[in-house]
Amino acid sequence: MKKEKKIEVCFTPAVFDCFTHPDAVVIVVDVLRATSAICTAFMNGAANIIPLETIEEARDYKSRGFLVAAERDGFVLDFADFGNSPFNFTKERVAGKTIVYSTTNGTQAIKMASECYQVAVGAYLNLSAVSDWAINQNRDVIILCAGWKNRFSLEDSLLAGAITEKILEHSNFYTICDSAIAAKDLWSVAKPDLISYIDKAAQRSRLRLNGLDDVIDYCHSIDITNIIPVYSDKVLIGITESVSAC
Amino acid sequence: MKKEKKIEVCFTPAVFDCFTHPDAVVIVVDVLRATSAICTAFMNGAANIIPLETIEEARDYKSRGFLVAAERDGFVLDFADFGNSPFNFTKERVAGKTIVYSTTNGTQAIKMASECYQVAVGAYLNLSAVSDWAINQNRDVIILCAGWKNRFSLEDSLLAGAITEKILEHSNFYTICDSAIAAKDLWSVAKPDLISYIDKAAQRSRLRLNGLDDVIDYCHSIDITNIIPVYSDKVLIGITESVSAC
Repeated sequence: MKKEKKIEVCFTPAVFDCFTHPDAVVIVVDVLRATSAICTAFMNGAANIIPLETIEEARDYKSRGFLVAAERDGFVLDFADFGNSPFNFTKERVAGKTIVYSTTNGTQAIKMASECYQVAVGAYLNLSAVSDWAINQNRDVIILCAGWKNRFSLEDSLLAGAITEKILEHSNFYTICDSAIAAKDLWSVAKPDLISYIDKAAQRSRLRLNGLDDVIDYCHSIDITNIIPVYSDKVLIGITESVSAC
Repeated sequence: MKKEKKIEVCFTPAVFDCFTHPDAVVIVVDVLRATSAICTAFMNGAANIIPLETIEEARDYKSRGFLVAAERDGFVLDFADFGNSPFNFTKERVAGKTIVYSTTNGTQAIKMASECYQVAVGAYLNLSAVSDWAINQNRDVIILCAGWKNRFSLEDSLLAGAITEKILEHSNFYTICDSAIAAKDLWSVAKPDLISYIDKAAQRSRLRLNGLDDVIDYCHSIDITNIIPVYSDKVLIGITESVSAC
């Protein structure tokens, strides 16, 4: 069977212009911590999430009575209800609620990707589910790493490699994208001992410096949910795929 | 001894703004084929090379009687004397000459890097020499991968990893840069059989498609020269370091 759909990895939003096309589906990844937090919110029953790019928009929503999660550089913004740690998105806080969400890198990446056909949110937490979802779309796939302020990020690129590996196991997908090949090979190096490997990452050090590194183990837990957050009409909703892709 | 100087890898010129600072030295790499060709030109006795960003500038130099090497997307421009293959830069053509040079990615990267303290040209051909040169500068080092039209390129990133590995062997250098760590780990995967590994790269396929892949083996030959092309006063000159860095 001819492989018809390609998979590509974009290491930073700064070069997304080189990848974007209107027929592709995009998986946005920001492991530490936005996309892990979004998955957690839906696991705990959030109704939907409104991702916003700017602090001003988030402040405006807050003044209109919304529950707001907002951070920059790892720190909760003063007007927000809470920040970017997945542990903030508890059942008590989020079940049945609409959450407004703005972060340093992740939410901007989601908005940027929304010019494509469909956008989903990927994390280790939903690795298999989001990979199966992408396979089932039967379209070209772009994995967009949120990175750190337009820089390459190790933890996002490794997850991109893990998703690439899963999707390439499906017979209809191929890649000729250097960054997809690199991500997949880096994932092969890291996966035997992911937590030790990720200890090298800059964001790991940033979180440790700020006392925010309690989430590392949790954010690298694989397949603890089958929920796929997808972006539609400017909000994220949580869906599940009932049929396996393989 | 405290490690005082850092090394970083910039995977694409599109994000060089995140890395550049005036006190750093930059090693520009464009393995297939610009920086390999530049090293070859100096190995064959070129007096100096004027790297240019635009086709118009190259055409203007040609009209003033200069020897011009110029290509876009792997093809020789119609007004140029020859293109981007290292095999074009023969002794007969270049010995004692000034060469004007403009390519798709590499020469732009050199010009961009020139806002930093010092710029050198790196290739597999001068891997140890350019690494020792950077160590001897005793400044922060940025390795700038020319990439392919702002995309990540496997062959450039692998060389960046090889240079990173060499420089980190020196006790005064450290890295906390995710892309430097990734490049070094990719190099570890690739180096046992570099030519087979590079067969996966997109630029390898582009060159093969265009019948230009005769240079692959040559461009991945390690340490066949100790010449370091450095950029000074808008021209590249070839220098050698007489004292080993280690």
